Amino acid sequence: MPEFALMNRQTPPVFPPRQVALVGKYDSPDNADALAQLAAWLAEHGLRVSIESATAERLGEHAGLADYPAQSFDEIGQSADLAIVLGGDGTLLHAARRLARHGVPLVGVNQGRLGFLTDLSRKDMILGMEKLLAGEFRPEERMLLDARLYRGETMTCGDIALNDVVIDKGGIGRMIELELSIDGEFICSLRADGLILSTPTGSTAYSLSAGGPILHPCSTGIALVPMLPHALTNRPIVVNDSACIEVRIAHADDARVHFDGQAAVALQSEDRLRIGRAPFSACLLHPPCYSYFAMLRRKLQWSERPSGH
Amino acid sequence: MPEFALMNRQTPPVFPPRQVALVGKYDSPDNADALAQLAAWLAEHGLRVSIESATAERLGEHAGLADYPAQSFDEIGQSADLAIVLGGDGTLLHAARRLARHGVPLVGVNQGRLGFLTDLSRKDMILGMEKLLAGEFRPEERMLLDARLYRGETMTCGDIALNDVVIDKGGIGRMIELELSIDGEFICSLRADGLILSTPTGSTAYSLSAGGPILHPCSTGIALVPMLPHALTNRPIVVNDSACIEVRIAHADDARVHFDGQAAVALQSEDRLRIGRAPFSACLLHPPCYSYFAMLRRKLQWSERPSGH
Amino acid sequence: MPEFALMNRQTPPVFPPRQVALVGKYDSPDNADALAQLAAWLAEHGLRVSIESATAERLGEHAGLADYPAQSFDEIGQSADLAIVLGGDGTLLHAARRLARHGVPLVGVNQGRLGFLTDLSRKDMILGMEKLLAGEFRPEERMLLDARLYRGETMTCGDIALNDVVIDKGGIGRMIELELSIDGEFICSLRADGLILSTPTGSTAYSLSAGGPILHPCSTGIALVPMLPHALTNRPIVVNDSACIEVRIAHADDARVHFDGQAAVALQSEDRLRIGRAPFSACLLHPPCYSYFAMLRRKLQWSERPSGH
Amino acid sequence: MPEFALMNRQTPPVFPPRQVALVGKYDSPDNADALAQLAAWLAEHGLRVSIESATAERLGEHAGLADYPAQSFDEIGQSADLAIVLGGDGTLLHAARRLARHGVPLVGVNQGRLGFLTDLSRKDMILGMEKLLAGEFRPEERMLLDARLYRGETMTCGDIALNDVVIDKGGIGRMIELELSIDGEFICSLRADGLILSTPTGSTAYSLSAGGPILHPCSTGIALVPMLPHALTNRPIVVNDSACIEVRIAHADDARVHFDGQAAVALQSEDRLRIGRAPFSACLLHPPCYSYFAMLRRKLQWSERPSGH
Repeated sequence: MPEFALMNRQTPPVFPPRQVALVGKYDSPDNADALAQLAAWLAEHGLRVSIESATAERLGEHAGLADYPAQSFDEIGQSADLAIVLGGDGTLLHAARRLARHGVPLVGVNQGRLGFLTDLSRKDMILGMEKLLAGEFRPEERMLLDARLYRGETMTCGDIALNDVVIDKGGIGRMIELELSIDGEFICSLRADGLILSTPTGSTAYSLSAGGPILHPCSTGIALVPMLPHALTNRPIVVNDSACIEVRIAHADDARVHFDGQAAVALQSEDRLRIGRAPFSACLLHPPCYSYFAMLRRKLQWSERPSGH
Repeated sequence: MPEFALMNRQTPPVFPPRQVALVGKYDSPDNADALAQLAAWLAEHGLRVSIESATAERLGEHAGLADYPAQSFDEIGQSADLAIVLGGDGTLLHAARRLARHGVPLVGVNQGRLGFLTDLSRKDMILGMEKLLAGEFRPEERMLLDARLYRGETMTCGDIALNDVVIDKGGIGRMIELELSIDGEFICSLRADGLILSTPTGSTAYSLSAGGPILHPCSTGIALVPMLPHALTNRPIVVNDSACIEVRIAHADDARVHFDGQAAVALQSEDRLRIGRAPFSACLLHPPCYSYFAMLRRKLQWSERPSGH
Repeated sequence: MPEFALMNRQTPPVFPPRQVALVGKYDSPDNADALAQLAAWLAEHGLRVSIESATAERLGEHAGLADYPAQSFDEIGQSADLAIVLGGDGTLLHAARRLARHGVPLVGVNQGRLGFLTDLSRKDMILGMEKLLAGEFRPEERMLLDARLYRGETMTCGDIALNDVVIDKGGIGRMIELELSIDGEFICSLRADGLILSTPTGSTAYSLSAGGPILHPCSTGIALVPMLPHALTNRPIVVNDSACIEVRIAHADDARVHFDGQAAVALQSEDRLRIGRAPFSACLLHPPCYSYFAMLRRKLQWSERPSGH
Repeated sequence: MPEFALMNRQTPPVFPPRQVALVGKYDSPDNADALAQLAAWLAEHGLRVSIESATAERLGEHAGLADYPAQSFDEIGQSADLAIVLGGDGTLLHAARRLARHGVPLVGVNQGRLGFLTDLSRKDMILGMEKLLAGEFRPEERMLLDARLYRGETMTCGDIALNDVVIDKGGIGRMIELELSIDGEFICSLRADGLILSTPTGSTAYSLSAGGPILHPCSTGIALVPMLPHALTNRPIVVNDSACIEVRIAHADDARVHFDGQAAVALQSEDRLRIGRAPFSACLLHPPCYSYFAMLRRKLQWSERPSGH
């Protein structure tokens, strides 16, 4: 019987998967072998396999990989029941941002040290897949942020983030001036190097360096964390995921907004960003033994059971 | 028509109130006049008035106050539709801890500068009451914490807190050693001066001094904030109000647990505290113009609208 | 008798001054009147007056100002006994960086609220000058930093700073990787948004926002304050002013080094910055009643004498 | 030739030592064997050996140890050229506080993991002694604090500290109110859980947990670090070692002052503590390969050379 202890989840992943897409790390040819090995194993076990287009373009010449069809993220989103990502947390963030709206669950295989998000090691990759096909996995929903940029009355662009939406001052000028509102209520104006809006997933990443709290992965909180604020009383604020957050760029010379540190858009004075929880979530499939806090203890080098144990 | 914009609320306050209890600041005889004035005004307007017993005992000799019946907090809880607290935030915290389980809503009148919780000034007291009786007020639910202390298999005591439950090392010894679990899962062990568990209400009090985040009053988060942790990676953690938090006292010489800084219980090694959201909330009645963030901007001296405005 | 309580000072300011240069705020024509008034008053009192060239160019058409010779900062450095700066802290920082090597003491007159460095208000300007000419002032030496940039074997540029030397990641990329040595000993490598090297003067400016300590103005310390470090254990370090600090840019895409937030130079991977105390100091002349901590209490809104007083 | 690279040192340690005292960890009988082995080895090499009285009393029955004379710390101070401490950092702190005024240099041998101060491991103990007798060691001076308590006009007691002088609120009451002056100038009043005054040696201990900066061991700074201050703008302040710091206890219910966490004295409202650098220093002898920052990188788990190396 599959273990199906859903965390916060509406629609369960399709199980067992029949169509699987493989995504590789950008500019990392050395995992072509792992991709080829994985693709062959999956095909042997009766699954249809595709390779994400950019991955295929870079690594397709390697023996075997060209045998599988290449698919764009949108095509994967339409057809795949599962995406397996070989790379680090950055690669998984990238794939999650492209696939989350389609509901495709993700498994992350890390080439090196395990990441915050990629929790299967390369040597356990095949074993992990065996277990997954046997239904032994732990699905987990992770909240995403949805940010929209308004210039005057027009929405000029928008994007989503699994970790964080970061508004920063850019390379020129020493501070930006922001005006923060929540659910239409003015909160404060803020002179700072920037502002991080973080999900629980992102709360252990950049936000933590800026003094933000760790949000339990089951938390429905969004953290608003000022970066090097001019006033020492401007401290991190946690709001519920139902909040509609508006950030007005009161003054900026070279400001930008970054999505998971992967996409960026230039900002102007008087721009407004509206940020809230996205209507869909990312679904990560973990090994059955997965523990968020065991991962965090390892990553943050927290001490284990106290000395008396 | 009364303004009845409920925040997070199940059972609305009884309106209009018929029985009102008055609570005064501990050892502050100088507000006897204000109490007497308020009691007379309420009686004139047809309400039944009682005086909280300890308040009556200290201030009862003042002209007029002895005319009203004295009631214990439990009696107030059984009979009053409203409690008006004259004092500071500490007095309101005390009354809230005693009355919240009975669902009696509270109004706070501050003698001096407005507090975080007491938002009616003494000079506006009668005007505020007029408005309140006309239905012009803003009820707000505030989460409470419920903490229970287990020694071996026995629950030895328990208490509630509107601001925070604080476990600290006491006067002797330099650190305590705690072991933290959430919903039965081990999180980390912690060597620190203590641990603050804070509600949104308490997040701007002691917790903020310890580096905790500000939790929006609509947030369903509980903040776990280590005090002077030995390991720099032990950072504040925010969990949802559905979490069952367990803190095991792995080692302590002189540790105590404090409830809103008002009641304290001595702890021993191997004690366990189980902390979660209380099944009832405190209900505060604010003036119609009340704004949580306007209060916070004033208290934290946040800047107002940016310079360009 | 002049008050001459020197703080840390080698060569006292020339007293009484005979040649005075006036420096105005960049793009602030509204202080032309104050400059003209001050120039006239000084001339009446027998002092030779010059106007800093860029100030003269912008404001020279105002009645009276064109009567005084314009001088570059270098010419002022050669000839003036005193420079009076009308503007904010930024204007004074700019003048100090240009004049400190020449030993010209500075007086700062602030147009608006008093600054950290500009402690004479415009309305007290003439009174302050009367006192100064009567010898009633308080000279204070402030340490400067000297930073030199090496690319390969070549020193490509260098500059000085009264507040801080800031190495930051620029607008692109999420982190820079630095390698820090002190007196030839490797300290640590650092992945962060940047690194602030701050004098005591700068310790209450940008460095404070990044979590740096306040360095008493008599302190001989230099603070090295990481900005949003990846590792939570990378904390501010204070070294003595005799230290030779080397920062190697191990990896950077768009990094820059900023001097007092006024001049900036682009950095490349493998660049090395060598930073130490400059061989000369800036000399500020304060009113006799000046108190550094009175200023700081006002600026940081510290509480005054405790409640019992 | 002995390596004699003195750091900040006036009077060099007597070399070669002729009289050596051994100090053991309080209540740690299991290092009796190591003490006996070390004592025998030193005697064989022609040195006179004594055992610190309390150590002798607890461990003296162990074979061999009773053969050596027992000496109080004061007697050791009068006669010994060197003290060797077997234990942890706490044992070394204790011995340093007793011996520093006599100028006896200290070597620390750690039973378990190396400490901040005890940098010779037990297995390298004999090898370390061989090197030390051959003159291969690195003496290092460490500043101490001298604190005196005044009640009215009377100095009621005083003590010294190698790490820190800590004023804290004790087990009762939520805050103390302090008034801080430096060199006779009022700095600020402070409502907090306490105040840590830390040497460079102590800056990586308790002070670091409270948000204090790391002071380079060659720094002449003293850090004043508020513990959980009520006002968020009360931040750590670094002063030079020439400063005379006065802390007035404006209000306290149960406050204490702690010296290196080992001795404590109860405080009353209106008490004044005067704290400054002690006129003598502690002298630590390190192995020739000793590096303060290598130790710190290991203790704080700082990353080593960046990834590209």
